[in-house]
Amino acid sequence: MKLSISTKAPGHINKEQAKADTERYTDGIRELQKKFYAQAKYSMLIIIQGLDASGKDGLISDVFKGVNPLGCTVKAFKAPTKEELAHDFLWRIHKHTPEKGMIQIFNRSHYEDVLITRVEKWIDDETARKRFQDINNFEQLLMNNNTVILKFYLHISPEEQHKRLMERKTNPEKFWKHNDGDWETRKKFDDYMKMYEDVFAHCNHPEWTIVPSDQNWYKEYIVAKKIYESLESLKPEYPR
Amino acid sequence: MKLSISTKAPGHINKEQAKADTERYTDGIRELQKKFYAQAKYSMLIIIQGLDASGKDGLISDVFKGVNPLGCTVKAFKAPTKEELAHDFLWRIHKHTPEKGMIQIFNRSHYEDVLITRVEKWIDDETARKRFQDINNFEQLLMNNNTVILKFYLHISPEEQHKRLMERKTNPEKFWKHNDGDWETRKKFDDYMKMYEDVFAHCNHPEWTIVPSDQNWYKEYIVAKKIYESLESLKPEYPR
Repeated sequence: MKLSISTKAPGHINKEQAKADTERYTDGIRELQKKFYAQAKYSMLIIIQGLDASGKDGLISDVFKGVNPLGCTVKAFKAPTKEELAHDFLWRIHKHTPEKGMIQIFNRSHYEDVLITRVEKWIDDETARKRFQDINNFEQLLMNNNTVILKFYLHISPEEQHKRLMERKTNPEKFWKHNDGDWETRKKFDDYMKMYEDVFAHCNHPEWTIVPSDQNWYKEYIVAKKIYESLESLKPEYPR
Repeated sequence: MKLSISTKAPGHINKEQAKADTERYTDGIRELQKKFYAQAKYSMLIIIQGLDASGKDGLISDVFKGVNPLGCTVKAFKAPTKEELAHDFLWRIHKHTPEKGMIQIFNRSHYEDVLITRVEKWIDDETARKRFQDINNFEQLLMNNNTVILKFYLHISPEEQHKRLMERKTNPEKFWKHNDGDWETRKKFDDYMKMYEDVFAHCNHPEWTIVPSDQNWYKEYIVAKKIYESLESLKPEYPR
């Protein structure tokens, strides 16, 4: 079971070395992205999922610092509007898929439609099963069109989540993120884990990267490495 | 082979009777659509395909006359823009799928991406094969969300097409539709038939209605009947 993976950095990883490597990777991402954009041959979709306070926002600002925003955009998906709910669940998502040359980051995504919706029992298992298939088909459509999809799940422990939610209550710089609802959601930690496991079981092509996220430095290291390696494997070149 | 179907009304059909029936069906569509809209339980997507001068525009205005435009919209798909081409071929289509309660008519559609693109050899057979699968998955996604999809192919003979294109050259009320390019496309009539047959073979769930369209009255009769029956089978009711 994937979520038996630890939420912490493995003991053998040297923190200072990892931070230096992360720096190297983020520099590399910045350089590769220039060619990626100019070439406009591929697009990249980066999906970031995780519970409240798992560090999604921080990850995005740290890993993509200095990347030209002309070629890299973020879309945060909140609760759907009435108009969005009157369409299929991928309607609002598809609009924001990246065009060629672009890196698009989804802060939460269509996966919420098989996570919160199941935890809260807004949809039944039969609907979820269909949605898994719809998601796989949708991601295949994008891949057929030269879109590279990277999916990250930021995995934190209940203890770390508790610590961070508490900090939001007390730290004036973080208080704006405080939300009483998060404490309610937190009670359903195990339900979320179960539904995440179901996602990993049914929607794993392309594969999820489960990111141990109790320590920010390790989370950033894993994600930056993966994105860097993925961009590099495409061997982007300026057009002649 | 489906396209061995005649382009003409069968001899046993009485024209006057069919026209009276069409009137009855279009009245019925108008009434049913009010409930369909109010109920907002289903949506309906009507896809109309056909060669130049097969009568797509005329069909839409005749069958939907009097339907409340608040609940019934038409989207005509032209050559894709540069931005559209930088996304997967369904990106521009998905945006225009109907929300619940709405009837959306597509005048041409995603099927052009496996028709003109193949006749003109812009895509190879392997890409076409993937697109067939993408289209089937996409239509399944919509059906999973209570969208009823009706697909009509307006089938005309080369002789009737020639007559109509000639008329566009000479009739001042139709001249605005005249386009030299249509005469070029006409030379590829058989290629189009071949590619349409491939569409019917690979993307037939939901099923295509092949509409003999040399006579407008018969074309309207078939389409109005189908839409009426489909709406009626949903038994739309005003919400309590």
